[in-house]
Amino acid sequence: MQATTEQITLGPLPGSEKNFLRRTRSDGIELRVPFRQVRLTDGTCFPLYDCSGPFTDPQTAIDLHEGIQQLREPFLQSRKELQPESRIIQAPGSFERTNRVARPGSRCTQMHYARKGEITPEMEFVALRENLNPEFVMDEVARGRAIIPANVNHSELEPMAIGRNFLVKINANIGNSAVKSSIEDEVEKMVWATRWGADTIMDLSTGAAIHETREWIIRNCPVPVGTVPIYQALEKVNGKPEELTWEIFRNTLIEQAQQGVDYFTIHAGVLLRFVPSTANRVTGIVSRGGSIMARWMLAHHQENFLYTHWDEICEIMAAYDISFSIGDGLRPGSIADANDEAQFGELKVQGDLTRRAWEFDVQVMNEGPGHVPMNKIKENMDRQLEWCDEAPFYTLGPLTTDIAPGYDHITSAIGAAMIGWFGTSMLCYVTPKEHLGLPDKEDVRQGVVTYKIAAHAADLAKGHPGAQLRDDALSKARFEFRWKDQYNLSLDPDRAKGFHDETLPGEGADVAHFCSMCGPKFCSMEITHQIRKMNSHGAGKQSEDTGQTRAKSNNGSQAAPDAVHSGSTAGTDSSTDPIQGMEQKSREFLEMGGEIYVSKQASSQDSTSDRD
Amino acid sequence: MQATTEQITLGPLPGSEKNFLRRTRSDGIELRVPFRQVRLTDGTCFPLYDCSGPFTDPQTAIDLHEGIQQLREPFLQSRKELQPESRIIQAPGSFERTNRVARPGSRCTQMHYARKGEITPEMEFVALRENLNPEFVMDEVARGRAIIPANVNHSELEPMAIGRNFLVKINANIGNSAVKSSIEDEVEKMVWATRWGADTIMDLSTGAAIHETREWIIRNCPVPVGTVPIYQALEKVNGKPEELTWEIFRNTLIEQAQQGVDYFTIHAGVLLRFVPSTANRVTGIVSRGGSIMARWMLAHHQENFLYTHWDEICEIMAAYDISFSIGDGLRPGSIADANDEAQFGELKVQGDLTRRAWEFDVQVMNEGPGHVPMNKIKENMDRQLEWCDEAPFYTLGPLTTDIAPGYDHITSAIGAAMIGWFGTSMLCYVTPKEHLGLPDKEDVRQGVVTYKIAAHAADLAKGHPGAQLRDDALSKARFEFRWKDQYNLSLDPDRAKGFHDETLPGEGADVAHFCSMCGPKFCSMEITHQIRKMNSHGAGKQSEDTGQTRAKSNNGSQAAPDAVHSGSTAGTDSSTDPIQGMEQKSREFLEMGGEIYVSKQASSQDSTSDRD
Repeated sequence: MQATTEQITLGPLPGSEKNFLRRTRSDGIELRVPFRQVRLTDGTCFPLYDCSGPFTDPQTAIDLHEGIQQLREPFLQSRKELQPESRIIQAPGSFERTNRVARPGSRCTQMHYARKGEITPEMEFVALRENLNPEFVMDEVARGRAIIPANVNHSELEPMAIGRNFLVKINANIGNSAVKSSIEDEVEKMVWATRWGADTIMDLSTGAAIHETREWIIRNCPVPVGTVPIYQALEKVNGKPEELTWEIFRNTLIEQAQQGVDYFTIHAGVLLRFVPSTANRVTGIVSRGGSIMARWMLAHHQENFLYTHWDEICEIMAAYDISFSIGDGLRPGSIADANDEAQFGELKVQGDLTRRAWEFDVQVMNEGPGHVPMNKIKENMDRQLEWCDEAPFYTLGPLTTDIAPGYDHITSAIGAAMIGWFGTSMLCYVTPKEHLGLPDKEDVRQGVVTYKIAAHAADLAKGHPGAQLRDDALSKARFEFRWKDQYNLSLDPDRAKGFHDETLPGEGADVAHFCSMCGPKFCSMEITHQIRKMNSHGAGKQSEDTGQTRAKSNNGSQAAPDAVHSGSTAGTDSSTDPIQGMEQKSREFLEMGGEIYVSKQASSQDSTSDRD
Repeated sequence: MQATTEQITLGPLPGSEKNFLRRTRSDGIELRVPFRQVRLTDGTCFPLYDCSGPFTDPQTAIDLHEGIQQLREPFLQSRKELQPESRIIQAPGSFERTNRVARPGSRCTQMHYARKGEITPEMEFVALRENLNPEFVMDEVARGRAIIPANVNHSELEPMAIGRNFLVKINANIGNSAVKSSIEDEVEKMVWATRWGADTIMDLSTGAAIHETREWIIRNCPVPVGTVPIYQALEKVNGKPEELTWEIFRNTLIEQAQQGVDYFTIHAGVLLRFVPSTANRVTGIVSRGGSIMARWMLAHHQENFLYTHWDEICEIMAAYDISFSIGDGLRPGSIADANDEAQFGELKVQGDLTRRAWEFDVQVMNEGPGHVPMNKIKENMDRQLEWCDEAPFYTLGPLTTDIAPGYDHITSAIGAAMIGWFGTSMLCYVTPKEHLGLPDKEDVRQGVVTYKIAAHAADLAKGHPGAQLRDDALSKARFEFRWKDQYNLSLDPDRAKGFHDETLPGEGADVAHFCSMCGPKFCSMEITHQIRKMNSHGAGKQSEDTGQTRAKSNNGSQAAPDAVHSGSTAGTDSSTDPIQGMEQKSREFLEMGGEIYVSKQASSQDSTSDRD
């Protein structure tokens, strides 16, 4: 089975171009950090964080059979701690790659280098990408407060960081199940998810061709790839949890480590003693990994082998620089089960496991819930920060009610935005199909865009420097009826334009000073412009200056943060009193017969008369 | 122009029946409070609050030309404070109604009666509807902390309450603009919006046939109808704000009062002194009513005539028992403008206006923002509670970011859920078309369901008694693979079933113990059932008892709240230790060869083999 490039969505988003920030390090390594530039109608550009890889770059030829560019190959070649390794399972497909592993006795993790005070190319890449100081990135990784998931065998990766002092990230789950989907679908889902903004993807395939599907995804994937290795281990024992063994699991870890998986979800915190506390829950155990391990433990009446073999697992993770995503196998699957004994018991163990992993220099994040009512969300964050020593938190939603299957991207976006604000570093998306079926492409898009909203709302609420620039630029475009700029600055330009054009199609509508929501006479923003004009008759130069300040802020440069906002707080305190101007000019204006309004309206109607 | 019944969506939601709670008052008036009953597959029923009126009741014939049943007519006939009145504009269509107004010197508002200690039929209706004490409802209305919007000329209304000690309510805006829509569309939108759960609707029509459209809507509308009278007043002066006069506005109020509008949005807090503080905003004035009044004030250089004529407006409101929805004309239209001087200046004036209206026994709620980042939402609620003496708050979202046109139902649901939790009484929905165009039916459905999610999430977070019963019932159905019950208990049964059937169609899939998301082998809930069975081998009777407790809780009766949840907190403290049972039985189970799992899996696959 092979994926063909024809099925892949290529090309930039509307109005966008791929651009790069370049820097040459003192060690000669060249960094080339991708950005998406939105070209505005006034000729300026607005830069956006971009995780879509070469698929949105028309300058780059894509051949899925070759895989995408190995951006990290020079970083890895120079790393003395690595040595070549042959795979235990031959790579499927035509991919030519050098496989690597840490030399015996050596460490190769980003945490290891950070703790030594070494700024890796990955750290510097991340620093450029997020407009941060490389030392700061290094310190956060050393402290365990941020991770850079970057398996030494995922050379195609564009490095990124997950941590609460970075932009909030989102993950999109893809992967086939026994019932549906194919390799082609999954590769395209990965491309599609990153196009809309997925910062990492998890391949949760459980069906046939699990190894091959993963290979195709990783070789073409510019973002970190996570997996839940127990799924594949279970396939190897024909779906019988009680037949799982440490050896089978261990080999699965190595097989996937050699492929280049960047982080593993491992449910080592599901301990035997917690299982009875789930018996009276409304929804028992809803994590697949958690339920598999619970069944294994009950069948053998032994402690979770992922827990008892933790040190050996850490050694494997360290050898490839795979990050832990310590699973929350006992997360609540319903509002009734939120924040219960089983859930918090496991979270405490996640903290213990985190500290033990850090002893091996292994990077760690912790998975979190689940279904949690709003009033119980903050407790989750607070306890995680305390019990897990500020390791990044990575939550699934949480869903704030159980009653809306078909809309769980929304029930969960509410919780995700809130917990992101409180300090969660990465939000695992939920699609409209959650609880109902496997998401298709449109579901993936809905899920990703919805989670970009949650993540960005969290960045705004946290006061992340620069986050508001995009809101300001888009709102300014909206206020000035620059429809195209409004679309192109939005999270989903195609949808914004499509919705607008449903009721007011045609090129003329793109410059109209109203939309079909209110029609020409009732457009508050158009009336405000008229008010401002009336105002400027009196206030004169003051208003014009304000206009210039705004125009400047439009380039989105982070070096000139938010001139708009500081302007708006000035308000009536400004030296020229606009009220005075109004007093003088209001009568003049009336004598003009409200002509500004009438003529505006007429011209607006003219420009769209073919559509009324 | 007439609306025809053929275009109207009729009939119950899947699995639901209309039912009524009946009570005869001591004054002989009979109350008949509608409920939606969901019939579950185990034969029990789950009652749901229902605002869809007779349109979902197959027992009731619908003829839009007659209007729906005048449920309140007996209430109003018995009210001595009312006298007949002829309309200043003849009612269009064939509707036969008695028009009423308060006798000179008399008061007829719910607040008036409440302050006198009189429990009106409307209050008792609300009490039955929300399972509350009628005295409590009366006290809340007397205190101004809740309103029952109920114009004496809206006899078709099924009374409901808006207040923060009641269920959080949602409003859906409908109405045509100059560019699009018709009477038929708008009546169907009203029926459609209440079908999905809109507690009130606002008719924001601005185009032609504004009076006639409104008449058709009100005569057929079981929920309160709100309007923004300045829109129609502006039509009367051909869209020129500066030609508006108090007299034109006053006549518009009376015209609409006589039609039966239940609440009026009036932008009386937009004072002349606030306008200059909007000049430096990123998005100026974004409320249509606010911008109209700002323009009027600038043109005349006079104070807002809605403010200077407040007492006269209160007299009109009192004469028909119309509630105020005091507009927030200066609400922020972008993240940059949130919580600024203009916005909070107006909010303080809203508080003054509230107290003045209460002197006339007029019921009041206050409108709120808008665009507000999450970290600034609570301040809005806190100030409103303080400055407006706990009058109900009624917010538009707020939208927590500006960057997602096309998805603003979601950006705003995040803020709406939060501010609902903090104490907002009603949430004005936002559809996916916000900022882009006039919503169509599918947008209305998306907007309403999304806001039901926000309102319900808020009820849960507030710990509203009974709110969680629905979550528990649905989650229990989900856990027990009762797919039909899961759909029918959800906010949108059609969508839930539709999404599920996309990947696993057919009747068999409705009983399958998995869905296409995970497939049969990886269904955590199915595995949990197996674990419980293993558990019960050892724990014996204890587990079975738990099962019975659950079955009991399934009737959703509010008298037996949440047996499920109290069960789950018991956990390991129960007298029989399930761990012990596991110890004894784990080997036995293994000897059975994991047959429970295998046979289960096989049978699941059999039942769906036609779909693999």
